[in-house]
Amino acid sequence: MKIGIIGAGRIGRVHAQNISVYLPELEIKTIADPFMSDELKAFAKRLGIPNCVEDADAILRDKEIEAVLICSSTDTHSKYIIQAARAGKHIFCEKPIDYDLNRVREAIQAAVDAGVKLQIGFCRRFDHNHRAVYDLVRSGRVGNPQMVKISSRDPSPPPVEYVKISGGIFYDMMIHDFDMARFLMSSEVVEVYAQGSVLIDPAIGEAGDVDTAMVTLKFENGALGYIDNSRQAVYGYDQRVEVFGSAGCAQNENDLPNTASLHAAEGTFCEPTYEIMFERYTFAFVNEIRAFAEAVLGDKETPVTGMDGLYPVQMAAAATKSLKEGRPVKISEVG
Amino acid sequence: MKIGIIGAGRIGRVHAQNISVYLPELEIKTIADPFMSDELKAFAKRLGIPNCVEDADAILRDKEIEAVLICSSTDTHSKYIIQAARAGKHIFCEKPIDYDLNRVREAIQAAVDAGVKLQIGFCRRFDHNHRAVYDLVRSGRVGNPQMVKISSRDPSPPPVEYVKISGGIFYDMMIHDFDMARFLMSSEVVEVYAQGSVLIDPAIGEAGDVDTAMVTLKFENGALGYIDNSRQAVYGYDQRVEVFGSAGCAQNENDLPNTASLHAAEGTFCEPTYEIMFERYTFAFVNEIRAFAEAVLGDKETPVTGMDGLYPVQMAAAATKSLKEGRPVKISEVG
Amino acid sequence: MKIGIIGAGRIGRVHAQNISVYLPELEIKTIADPFMSDELKAFAKRLGIPNCVEDADAILRDKEIEAVLICSSTDTHSKYIIQAARAGKHIFCEKPIDYDLNRVREAIQAAVDAGVKLQIGFCRRFDHNHRAVYDLVRSGRVGNPQMVKISSRDPSPPPVEYVKISGGIFYDMMIHDFDMARFLMSSEVVEVYAQGSVLIDPAIGEAGDVDTAMVTLKFENGALGYIDNSRQAVYGYDQRVEVFGSAGCAQNENDLPNTASLHAAEGTFCEPTYEIMFERYTFAFVNEIRAFAEAVLGDKETPVTGMDGLYPVQMAAAATKSLKEGRPVKISEVG
Amino acid sequence: MKIGIIGAGRIGRVHAQNISVYLPELEIKTIADPFMSDELKAFAKRLGIPNCVEDADAILRDKEIEAVLICSSTDTHSKYIIQAARAGKHIFCEKPIDYDLNRVREAIQAAVDAGVKLQIGFCRRFDHNHRAVYDLVRSGRVGNPQMVKISSRDPSPPPVEYVKISGGIFYDMMIHDFDMARFLMSSEVVEVYAQGSVLIDPAIGEAGDVDTAMVTLKFENGALGYIDNSRQAVYGYDQRVEVFGSAGCAQNENDLPNTASLHAAEGTFCEPTYEIMFERYTFAFVNEIRAFAEAVLGDKETPVTGMDGLYPVQMAAAATKSLKEGRPVKISEVG
Repeated sequence: MKIGIIGAGRIGRVHAQNISVYLPELEIKTIADPFMSDELKAFAKRLGIPNCVEDADAILRDKEIEAVLICSSTDTHSKYIIQAARAGKHIFCEKPIDYDLNRVREAIQAAVDAGVKLQIGFCRRFDHNHRAVYDLVRSGRVGNPQMVKISSRDPSPPPVEYVKISGGIFYDMMIHDFDMARFLMSSEVVEVYAQGSVLIDPAIGEAGDVDTAMVTLKFENGALGYIDNSRQAVYGYDQRVEVFGSAGCAQNENDLPNTASLHAAEGTFCEPTYEIMFERYTFAFVNEIRAFAEAVLGDKETPVTGMDGLYPVQMAAAATKSLKEGRPVKISEVG
Repeated sequence: MKIGIIGAGRIGRVHAQNISVYLPELEIKTIADPFMSDELKAFAKRLGIPNCVEDADAILRDKEIEAVLICSSTDTHSKYIIQAARAGKHIFCEKPIDYDLNRVREAIQAAVDAGVKLQIGFCRRFDHNHRAVYDLVRSGRVGNPQMVKISSRDPSPPPVEYVKISGGIFYDMMIHDFDMARFLMSSEVVEVYAQGSVLIDPAIGEAGDVDTAMVTLKFENGALGYIDNSRQAVYGYDQRVEVFGSAGCAQNENDLPNTASLHAAEGTFCEPTYEIMFERYTFAFVNEIRAFAEAVLGDKETPVTGMDGLYPVQMAAAATKSLKEGRPVKISEVG
Repeated sequence: MKIGIIGAGRIGRVHAQNISVYLPELEIKTIADPFMSDELKAFAKRLGIPNCVEDADAILRDKEIEAVLICSSTDTHSKYIIQAARAGKHIFCEKPIDYDLNRVREAIQAAVDAGVKLQIGFCRRFDHNHRAVYDLVRSGRVGNPQMVKISSRDPSPPPVEYVKISGGIFYDMMIHDFDMARFLMSSEVVEVYAQGSVLIDPAIGEAGDVDTAMVTLKFENGALGYIDNSRQAVYGYDQRVEVFGSAGCAQNENDLPNTASLHAAEGTFCEPTYEIMFERYTFAFVNEIRAFAEAVLGDKETPVTGMDGLYPVQMAAAATKSLKEGRPVKISEVG
Repeated sequence: MKIGIIGAGRIGRVHAQNISVYLPELEIKTIADPFMSDELKAFAKRLGIPNCVEDADAILRDKEIEAVLICSSTDTHSKYIIQAARAGKHIFCEKPIDYDLNRVREAIQAAVDAGVKLQIGFCRRFDHNHRAVYDLVRSGRVGNPQMVKISSRDPSPPPVEYVKISGGIFYDMMIHDFDMARFLMSSEVVEVYAQGSVLIDPAIGEAGDVDTAMVTLKFENGALGYIDNSRQAVYGYDQRVEVFGSAGCAQNENDLPNTASLHAAEGTFCEPTYEIMFERYTFAFVNEIRAFAEAVLGDKETPVTGMDGLYPVQMAAAATKSLKEGRPVKISEVG
């Protein structure tokens, strides 16, 4: 199956490389990016990608291309989803679809109307550690899930300039965890309560955001949920989930770069965890594109549907409102 | 130093045994319990305790006895504290002092007025795992604490008859965690938000309580806190704490009965954790009485003061109110 | 059952204390030690032991005393075993019975002739971690055992004066591991090959011993074994065993004083393991005396028989010879 | 730098893929394999390798090609090393160079005479877990190394037909561990003692080999070493090393596919370790070729020299002799 990639930034290139090595069933025909460079052309050549263009239209108009990966900036996601859907192409789109709930719904509808597959890039669902917890829950070994707990902390805060346009910690960072909570529990969230503080960098507060947040969730089925985020875990990515249920508790630990330990007079020492997202989630990126290819080629539902792209944005909206108003907010309040 | 023990139930006997083996600086002169039995007399004889009586007055009136351990039922705690204080005896009292905030304050005041030491039995402060996290925080290696997370789950729910008189999950079970949160963070909680569900036994719900609860905390210094409780972790006591700060994250894991693992074709297997509180917290009970002895004999402040007995009861009151009203509740609202 | 304790050094007192707290079925009537002191008398009084004497004969002649614990110096073990057996008393004796194989056999025979129980103090068989591996092997979950590996390292070397009279590292230290190897594999060793070096303290070499040793074992059933010893593990007691078989691998890890960890920018840190044998093996000492009491009171075979006391001494003799001659030595060569 | 790959079996293809994705500084010009197929041609095309030929001469004669990867069968290694050296090409050669010590020396000499780099494919030196232990040792945090212990167990035995031509367990399997022992200790082995048994498959014994082996090592500097191998660890690859020294103990644990655990009433469960070598050592293969490229491009010594290829073969010869003769064998005895 021939595909096109719209957007050749960091994530677009990661997908291109992974496809070239691990996914022989896909052939990248064209990669499009408005910021063309010799270096990008060399990258494309090395991976055997025949066309390297500035304008995404070259992909959207190409009858041979059956599927597109939308890896451009967030503000263009919904536009390209709608255009690709109308051109009859299956769509993998990086998260989030949009910050505006109506734009999200419009994009989803376009894919539905066109009868094309749509998968959203919530890559953590495909991470070996998180997937293993999910599999344990699905296998029934946890019994009836009663609580979900998620810790998700970044090694260091983004530049304040980025924070300002990021939509805030709930849209930018916790959105992954909102998705993870739904994914692990297979139940919808009906209410959120958000706490937040500025404990790391006052400039983040001045930009109108918080850098430390805790959110509790109520699920439709009575189960309870908890998420914490910090913009700065000095020991590296801290990514852990736990599902507690009537028959047991499934949890995972941080990935460490190696299993070595030193036992010395002062105690036991191990290396810190990963600092770089693309190292931490190396195979999650491969696995999500593989799953997309399988869904398209096997004509199955994608494992992260358009609606899966909508719910976390609703939760982010509710958390933002909750933090502002200092009270629990129902999902139904945010429309 | 000669001491008396009021109440010879399970916990009173544990203290008696521990003192006899591990704390040669203390000599138990009298043990009092209204439910006298030959078996209790044999127990006392075996430990070399010369007097075994029904009436606590024998202890309170005995000039030789310098300190008492109040291990009777909760509804008698404040009464005995006041009487012992007036009799000039130092006091170790099991938690909680009382469910009524005014009774708590009265008891504390009596000890202050009499100039006697008062220590409350929040034994988890003396647990090797929790103390080790505390020590890491105190050492500064965590930096400025920003979040505290506590999971505290029991192996199985108490009888519903007990639940009915327990004061509810926040007074009966989470009170330990409210104390732990303050202890680990060295800051006071100003607001709590409680969620709860009946997911384990409908009879608990019929008794007006929940069996699964999550509470988030706001501290005076802006730090955030989280506690979860379940009445039933089928894998045994689940007791973990985590303090996250600007320089690192200190956490502990459940105690396992041994370090053995089996690696087989189906995977790796380890034994479940403890089922019995007195096994899980064996040495915590020894350590808290040792600390009490040191405070009295060395004329130092006790490590868990009367006020440390008050705050968690306030937090329990606020959590109860929050759950009922579905909104965050300030500590100042509960008086 | 009334018992007597011969020898009130460190280990004799540990047994006395444990019996007083944990083993109500035993009553210590007399404790005997040639080095009498006020401090020892106070110790006995505190534990409610009525008689504290210098001469072990007071125990051996006492008709009321049914069992003795021999906790005196090694050179007196076989003598007291023989005397106690002739006096019709059941015997718990600290390891080793003797360094001389004939003396060992003589003592065992005396117990057999008298029809009394004899248990040797290989306490590690009762350690929670080692016992858990043993239980996994016995349960069949390891399948047919093919290899056993034992690491046993002390926190620091004993004084050189002690090394000189210790019989050497194989008799003094590895004897525990020789017992453990037989225990875990339920098969007899037929050949040993020993390597040794002086890497820690040249004075140990000058005293004719080594401080670092590796021994490989061949078992009757074709299985292979390995043991290493070091006199100095700066990180504390290092006590690990592993049994590998056709269906899996059972292993244990060092006991740590707590489960806390600190995750910081430099990496993860945990506390070092135990430095003091009596902390590391706290409950092993309780469990072995409980097992002895059960064997005597229930008229069952003791879990560590006289013959279990003989084999490790043979293995130590063979290892000593192997190291000296630089070749594998058959157990049958040492008589 | 343009390179050629001789041999397009499993390992040759792994190197080709890794170079194409991860090592942009290398360009594969030609891949040669006597067993040509359409499938191999498609593989080459996909990776952008322009030439796919049957005869390695096409590589050896190509002036543009500066370095070769010899991934053909072991019996051709020394021949191709000599030919490539004479053609002035830098050489990466899979292990072992040859089973015959003279052939090994001849090949090494050819590379020396031609002034070309020679690196041997002991990939485990580049594994994240083993490298981390090595780094800890090199950093001095272990102090003076006194013992090295290596466990290396395969998930399942190779076909007996392969065992017959493999040279035996010491040449085929333990050779990696002989290399690892030298690597970790930075000292040469002077004597080995080998034990072996047939415990897994009698057919392996009939083929003249053992399936379970333990070897102890003496190093020049007095340190001691230990290696065990099993052809069948039902729980997957078991690859652990430990270096014990005067200042501490560095060790690693098996890689697990994920960090998830399930805590249930029966105990804690984790997934088994890897079953497939290429998954277990994914990045070790990348890292060793990267190191080779750095050595050639930076004109530095290769991290695994020709002599590093010789010593493990000597150790295998000594172990084979030791097992046969039932006695320790000096390396100097095998020439």
